[in-house]
Amino acid sequence: MMVHTLELLAGGVTTARGFRASGVSAGIKAQGLDLALLVADRPATAAAVFTTNRAQAAPVLVSREHLSRSGGTARAIVVNSGCANACTGDAGLQVARDMASAAAKEVGCSTEQVLVASTGVIGVALDIGKVRAALPAAVAALGDGSGAARAIMTTDPFPKEAAARVTIGGTEVAVGGMAKGSGMIEPMMATMLAFITTDAAVPRPLLDRALREAVDDTFNAITVDGECSTNDCVMLLANGASGAVVDESTYDGFVQALRAVCLKLALGIVRGGEGATKLITVTVTGGLSADEARRAAKAIANSPLVKTAIHGGDPNWGRLIAVCGRAGVAFELSRAAVCLGPIVLFKDGRPHDEAAPEAARYLKHNDVLVTVDLGAGHASSTVWTCDLTAEYVRINAEYRT
Amino acid sequence: MMVHTLELLAGGVTTARGFRASGVSAGIKAQGLDLALLVADRPATAAAVFTTNRAQAAPVLVSREHLSRSGGTARAIVVNSGCANACTGDAGLQVARDMASAAAKEVGCSTEQVLVASTGVIGVALDIGKVRAALPAAVAALGDGSGAARAIMTTDPFPKEAAARVTIGGTEVAVGGMAKGSGMIEPMMATMLAFITTDAAVPRPLLDRALREAVDDTFNAITVDGECSTNDCVMLLANGASGAVVDESTYDGFVQALRAVCLKLALGIVRGGEGATKLITVTVTGGLSADEARRAAKAIANSPLVKTAIHGGDPNWGRLIAVCGRAGVAFELSRAAVCLGPIVLFKDGRPHDEAAPEAARYLKHNDVLVTVDLGAGHASSTVWTCDLTAEYVRINAEYRT
Repeated sequence: MMVHTLELLAGGVTTARGFRASGVSAGIKAQGLDLALLVADRPATAAAVFTTNRAQAAPVLVSREHLSRSGGTARAIVVNSGCANACTGDAGLQVARDMASAAAKEVGCSTEQVLVASTGVIGVALDIGKVRAALPAAVAALGDGSGAARAIMTTDPFPKEAAARVTIGGTEVAVGGMAKGSGMIEPMMATMLAFITTDAAVPRPLLDRALREAVDDTFNAITVDGECSTNDCVMLLANGASGAVVDESTYDGFVQALRAVCLKLALGIVRGGEGATKLITVTVTGGLSADEARRAAKAIANSPLVKTAIHGGDPNWGRLIAVCGRAGVAFELSRAAVCLGPIVLFKDGRPHDEAAPEAARYLKHNDVLVTVDLGAGHASSTVWTCDLTAEYVRINAEYRT
Repeated sequence: MMVHTLELLAGGVTTARGFRASGVSAGIKAQGLDLALLVADRPATAAAVFTTNRAQAAPVLVSREHLSRSGGTARAIVVNSGCANACTGDAGLQVARDMASAAAKEVGCSTEQVLVASTGVIGVALDIGKVRAALPAAVAALGDGSGAARAIMTTDPFPKEAAARVTIGGTEVAVGGMAKGSGMIEPMMATMLAFITTDAAVPRPLLDRALREAVDDTFNAITVDGECSTNDCVMLLANGASGAVVDESTYDGFVQALRAVCLKLALGIVRGGEGATKLITVTVTGGLSADEARRAAKAIANSPLVKTAIHGGDPNWGRLIAVCGRAGVAFELSRAAVCLGPIVLFKDGRPHDEAAPEAARYLKHNDVLVTVDLGAGHASSTVWTCDLTAEYVRINAEYRT
């Protein structure tokens, strides 16, 4: 494999040449920005992954349809927050279609070249009048798009943006994106809303493959609360404005840059998880297979007892062992091990509680590493989660009030 | 099927004739009762179900062994709280054996006629000296056993006891029990600690069958936090003191009484779930199979977003739909329905938000019924859970401090 010089940049969805974005207030949320528009100056190759939830929101259905009709090209993405337009029946489907056609008219492209996304409360009708009224302002505001990353937020405590640069065939290529969290997060083969752009030219099959590959160990490896939403999607637009063309020989470098952007956005979602105070990296080793290691890591990352213990600074390794034992994977207690950061708390079937005070000090960090060896094989997997706090309960008990 | 007159009684583990119990303070917990002893005056037929967690605690291993060696008879059960004696290696196994032999000596029976159980923190050594020193007092205190149900508590806010009477072959038979919760609760083919007695005579194969049948839709149908402990067990002793014999012709009546006792204890565990303020009954209908209905019901019952919404009194039916959509079961949105109590909030693919204020008032009750129709078939399942509160986080963030 070639070594590619990969550089992380400040920036986001407009770092790649030929993309402009904006965020405006359409009055869908009680206050603040709630409508984002992303426009590619020329038709871009488009790839997307969507939620596997069987209750798919109207914008998910419409974006799938448009991608299929356009043969995978897009000029614009329009996104609202404050209303998910999910479980809204035929009327909701019509609203999603109208949202695309209104944006197409303003941008000057065909309707199927517009992808749509929504996030917010499920089951509430989206007022298309508000979207239509705000679109001219969104077009007028198109620029570096600092407002766009804010306009897609719901309970997110901060906007999530990322950008990377890589050299492909002697030409510098940029990949940039934005994402929103922050509850109902355990993407399954897809994720919450994320929008990524690149100025590389990437043929559709390669773009699809790159997106699936990058998403698998980034967005699909995070969880806030084990919930998979009705609206999850990651959309990737490639406009070729840099002049660089991605082919099999340069694919690896492109995927590296794409994965770096996806990982930064995904970790941003976890860090900004509802009520979160800590980013927890869970690595499971000693699995019988990569799938079993991933399953155990997800079980740990979704365990309320593990997440509350880490929140409380309690190096309660017994809860980690108990989770592995119920995770439905091969697990050999006599060969298992638990570490917090570099500190061994359980190994070869025996506790090392003399290390508990040191581990308690370690848990005061905002970034915590949890490593568990299942003692069953040689496969490993890493997932990311956050702690479970009283603030998560407060946010979700009061979400609609 | 015969109609059996089933009567729920005040009472517990000593309601059946020929059983005595006690609870004493052995100093394992910082304060309060922490050692329970249950004695059958004559050898009782014994059946038990244990945790399916692959990390099985020492007392689970020892009780399995004793049941097998004794051919399914027991004279006594000794239980401590404050320490789970789990993940404690060979030393912990020896402590569990010593606990049984010390109790056997005090009670006057063989060691394999003693079953043992422990609950509390995982990975901490149990001080056998404290158990030995307290056993004579426990024997001296044997009686109606009101202390026993308290001595097995950890974070439980109240003791759980239940008793029922049924007539078998013209003779009155009692079934009674005690249980403890209240976190790390999603029993898998087993449950948290529960101890049940009956003065019926029940042959071993029938006793086993009755216990498995009763546990399946009681203890195995509850969840507090989706966690399955290393120490779960339900033990059932039948001493025949009533003179009534259970056979195939009287089996149904016995199982009804046993299920009534199990259900009351199981619901007690949920009501006393860590931080719980509400008992939530989740019924899923319209499933393709009973297994799929159960899986969807469990997914709802473990959803932090559903549990926080109900805690906050928010009739957020969209979260219920989203959970069913990700539960990995057949689900047809256009035929699905969601009700809170008698109030329809979503039906035939359409929201009925005009009912939201009434549903919000309904959610002020302490007992809440959630019904979801998957729209896929005709199978149904009911599980029980509690709400997720800031108090759950507090309890588990501070458990060992």
